[in-house]
Amino acid sequence: MGSVLNVIKIGGNVIDDEEQLHIFLEKFAALQGKKILVHGGGKVATRTAAGLGIEAKMIDGRRVTDAPMLDIVTMVYAGLTNKKIVSLLQKFDCDALGLSGADGNSIKAVKRPVREVDYGYVGDILVDSVNTLSIKKFLEAGFTPVFSAITHNGLGQLLNTNADTIASALAVSLSKIYDTRLIYCFEKDGVLRDVNDERSVIKSINPDEFEALKSAGVIYEGMIPKLDNAFHAIGKGVKNVYIGNALNLHLYQQGEFGTCMLAK
Amino acid sequence: MGSVLNVIKIGGNVIDDEEQLHIFLEKFAALQGKKILVHGGGKVATRTAAGLGIEAKMIDGRRVTDAPMLDIVTMVYAGLTNKKIVSLLQKFDCDALGLSGADGNSIKAVKRPVREVDYGYVGDILVDSVNTLSIKKFLEAGFTPVFSAITHNGLGQLLNTNADTIASALAVSLSKIYDTRLIYCFEKDGVLRDVNDERSVIKSINPDEFEALKSAGVIYEGMIPKLDNAFHAIGKGVKNVYIGNALNLHLYQQGEFGTCMLAK
Repeated sequence: MGSVLNVIKIGGNVIDDEEQLHIFLEKFAALQGKKILVHGGGKVATRTAAGLGIEAKMIDGRRVTDAPMLDIVTMVYAGLTNKKIVSLLQKFDCDALGLSGADGNSIKAVKRPVREVDYGYVGDILVDSVNTLSIKKFLEAGFTPVFSAITHNGLGQLLNTNADTIASALAVSLSKIYDTRLIYCFEKDGVLRDVNDERSVIKSINPDEFEALKSAGVIYEGMIPKLDNAFHAIGKGVKNVYIGNALNLHLYQQGEFGTCMLAK
Repeated sequence: MGSVLNVIKIGGNVIDDEEQLHIFLEKFAALQGKKILVHGGGKVATRTAAGLGIEAKMIDGRRVTDAPMLDIVTMVYAGLTNKKIVSLLQKFDCDALGLSGADGNSIKAVKRPVREVDYGYVGDILVDSVNTLSIKKFLEAGFTPVFSAITHNGLGQLLNTNADTIASALAVSLSKIYDTRLIYCFEKDGVLRDVNDERSVIKSINPDEFEALKSAGVIYEGMIPKLDNAFHAIGKGVKNVYIGNALNLHLYQQGEFGTCMLAK
């Protein structure tokens, strides 16, 4: 097995807070070895859309991406947010390379088929979506890829794609080449046994414990798809999946970061 | 001397016309050998800014880039326009890689000093602005860099930078490694002896002829800085500089494209 690769995903809560973003990026830059950052959107897209008189449409918590909204998310995710992050990482001596899935044909997706709901220009990741050859070239050349949540279909169409899923797909595909770990950053210190007690972080969860915690209602709502993604990735070759607070990333290489999802 | 490199710049007129953009990109994709595309902005930035209630400020034909306008041009140039171009090039089997100057630390600029006019977050390119090592890595790995006109200062600040100047700086710096040609695409078939006659293209111009054509008023206004840039590049190692119609790019490798600027 090759060298270690850390795939790290940050969400809107960190991106929307300039100070938190700086703190996180400085810690990310300090992380040794090969790494990839995947970032979601944040409120700027919704705000920009509103400013332009385009209403954000959500169905079951998912953004419906019509043509004007695709332009907005492409602008904000792949443009403003991605380049801000890249320029800050360069400041912190991390040779970041901002990418969408179209760049280097890194991630090809398929427009989600219209069934009950037409999600518009939303891309679903397939098994062979990730171009490991391209991404390996970037990593081996010493760059740190920074992915926005925009992909393409290979036929000239950009697609809006869930950032958690991109992170998971990257980690799974690259685990064939690298000893890969996946780290989901969010606003809590980890999976909490008691949602009101930040100190109640569960150190590790195996699949059986995950089922038990779901049944007991300890893990619920938005955490369920996150952890589903995590265990899916472990089943497909990713070494470990962590979930924890973006601002604690410095604890990761000390083995003290968040909750670790285990294979068994 | 190494292999041939073509650095090609397109402006807003092509970018703003979806049909023309497709035609141009298909021709660009078909161009053999190593190549770099540099694109300017177009009207989308101004339109987006207007939609958001931000007024575009111009002084002597140059955009004044205050903080909100920097966000807009970063969104539009490095996001929407860049990723649209990259995804279309991928469709045409060109392995495009969209870049700002921050990505791979490719182009570092210096914020223009405030003298009579404060241009805001505008970046000036210096002699050592271009990171030829990074760009060589991309080219040698088989990627086609596509640069938007956004750079950074290495300290976390993005900067709006003139696309003609970026193209010229890239060509000059990379001429130390590659047998480099620079091609400015615009809406005319070349430098015209008679502005009303598209067939009056001047085949070649040397520096003496340039001076004579300026004195005679044949070359005037916006063409002067373009050709100044061109002759500057030739003086610094670029093999040839061409100026011609984006839609005629297929004629380039037949030696039939636009006006060629000669060293002597």
